[in-house]
Order: sequence, then structure tokens, then C-alpha cells
Amino acid sequence: MNGFPASQAMAMALEEAAAAGARGEVPVGAVLLGPDGTVLARAGNRTRERADPTAHAEMLVIRDACAAVGSERLTGCSLFVTLEPCAMCAAAIAAARVARLVFGAEDPKSGGVLHGARVFSHPQAHHVPEVVGGVGEAAAAALLRDFFMRLRF
Amino acid sequence: MNGFPASQAMAMALEEAAAAGARGEVPVGAVLLGPDGTVLARAGNRTRERADPTAHAEMLVIRDACAAVGSERLTGCSLFVTLEPCAMCAAAIAAARVARLVFGAEDPKSGGVLHGARVFSHPQAHHVPEVVGGVGEAAAAALLRDFFMRLRF
Repeated sequence: MNGFPASQAMAMALEEAAAAGARGEVPVGAVLLGPDGTVLARAGNRTRERADPTAHAEMLVIRDACAAVGSERLTGCSLFVTLEPCAMCAAAIAAARVARLVFGAEDPKSGGVLHGARVFSHPQAHHVPEVVGGVGEAAAAALLRDFFMRLRF
Repeated sequence: MNGFPASQAMAMALEEAAAAGARGEVPVGAVLLGPDGTVLARAGNRTRERADPTAHAEMLVIRDACAAVGSERLTGCSLFVTLEPCAMCAAAIAAARVARLVFGAEDPKSGGVLHGARVFSHPQAHHVPEVVGGVGEAAAAALLRDFFMRLRF
């Protein structure tokens, strides 16, 4: 990946997560970089605003990036997301042939990469990206913790 | 489920699958019925037309039905699809709280319900629908077989 350091991409994803939290959404954000490191798409969760259970940050950046490049494949692209993707998003990442997945905090409750369905760990995943976890983990986890604390009190 | 028999819903899903095949898409179709058996949404695959790897028939009917009812939850609804859902669609079905999944042919290559990720078979699936397979299986499988035969010859 050229040009755009991973730490900057995750910082941008964290901005999207914080903006999602400010809108009352679960604070998760994602950024999709092209093979040359340019930002193809950035988004935070919008499931509540859009009344759309598929509007996770990862799905939105995949759809927006595909629209931007005019292809259903994102070959050579990198997806940065603040939280371990769920099974839906992990399978969409495989379907889109994203080359590299970088995520922040692990998600034992809903994750589908390191937990539960472990979507990339079966032959039915026709593409397996490089996976890097724990980038920006503390900041991502703090956003989620603060969000759910506010809901509770 | 009242009013709309399962066989009619699957027949409608098969029509959508055939229409998708005629558009050059992998021939899979889906129908979403409300709790009272009314048709909330019907769709076939549109991944190629829309250059969107998430535009599987199941995802389209979930999104359309959620828009129709103004909610990200499809409590009490039934989703009919001609092929076993992949992991992405299965996880979206769980996220949308669909009550009942009825599918046609099994999909050992890409399925995520009975195969591979087995999305509903982990605690990370926060909702597990009733699952009925093999409804309209022969017709659904024939559509897919003919489609891939035409690609090959």
C-alpha cells in the first residue's frame, strides 16, 4: 500500500465511528483504500437512520467503493474498520475480493472473523483477505464502551 | 402464515430467479412475506447490473421490506429464496430478525446455513430463524444448472 499510512486510515475510520455514535448509531466506522492508497469510501454505521439492518459501516464502504470503481470486485483494496466484522460483513469482504482487512477491537459477541462463524475459515469463502487485527484497538473499544455506558445510565 | 401458501411464494421466487438468469445474473430469486402473508418485497440477483457484490436476492428483499415497513426488524416475516443463502445473507437474515427462512436447493459450494460458516449455529447469531430447506428444490437447481451449462458451452 502506497501513500496513505495504515495509522491514518484507522484514524479516519475512528472519526467515522465517533460521528456514527453522535448520530445515535453503534459507533463503528470504516474506510476503503484503493490499491494506490487513495480513499475510495468512508462511512459509519447507519442502520437506525436508514432502517436498514445491512447498513453496517463495512457494507456501506464496499458498496460505495464498488460504485466508485464501477466493479463488483475491489481487487488490491484495503478495508479498515474499527471493530471485528460480523459474519455478514466478513462474507461481503470475501465476495468483493478485498485484499486486506485491518480492524481495531475484537468482537466476541458479534464478530464473524475470529469468533463464531469464522467466515474466512471455510472453503465456502472463495477469497480470504490478509487479516490484521488490533490496530487502533484501544480507541475503538473506548468509543463502544462509552456509547453503551451512555445507553445504560 | 396466512393467506399466501408457501408453494406460491416459492413459485414467485423461482420467477424472480428465472428473470435474473435472463438478465445474465446467477439465477437466484427471493420473496419476503409479512406476518400476514402479504408480499413485502420480491427480487432476483442484481450483482452484475449494479456492480454491487452485496446485491444478492436475499439482501435486496430484506432492504426493500425494511424500507416498506420502516423498520430494521422484520419480526414475524418469512423469507423464501431459491438457493441456500451464503454467509452474508444468512447473517443479514439474523440481523433483520426474520422469523422463517424457506429455501430451495442446497449450496455446498457457497452456502452458509447448512455448509461452511453455518451462520445460525453459533452464539454470535443473535437470532435464529426457523429453517425449511428443499422447497421447490428441483426447479431451483434446474435453473442454476441450465445457467452454468450455457456459460460453459
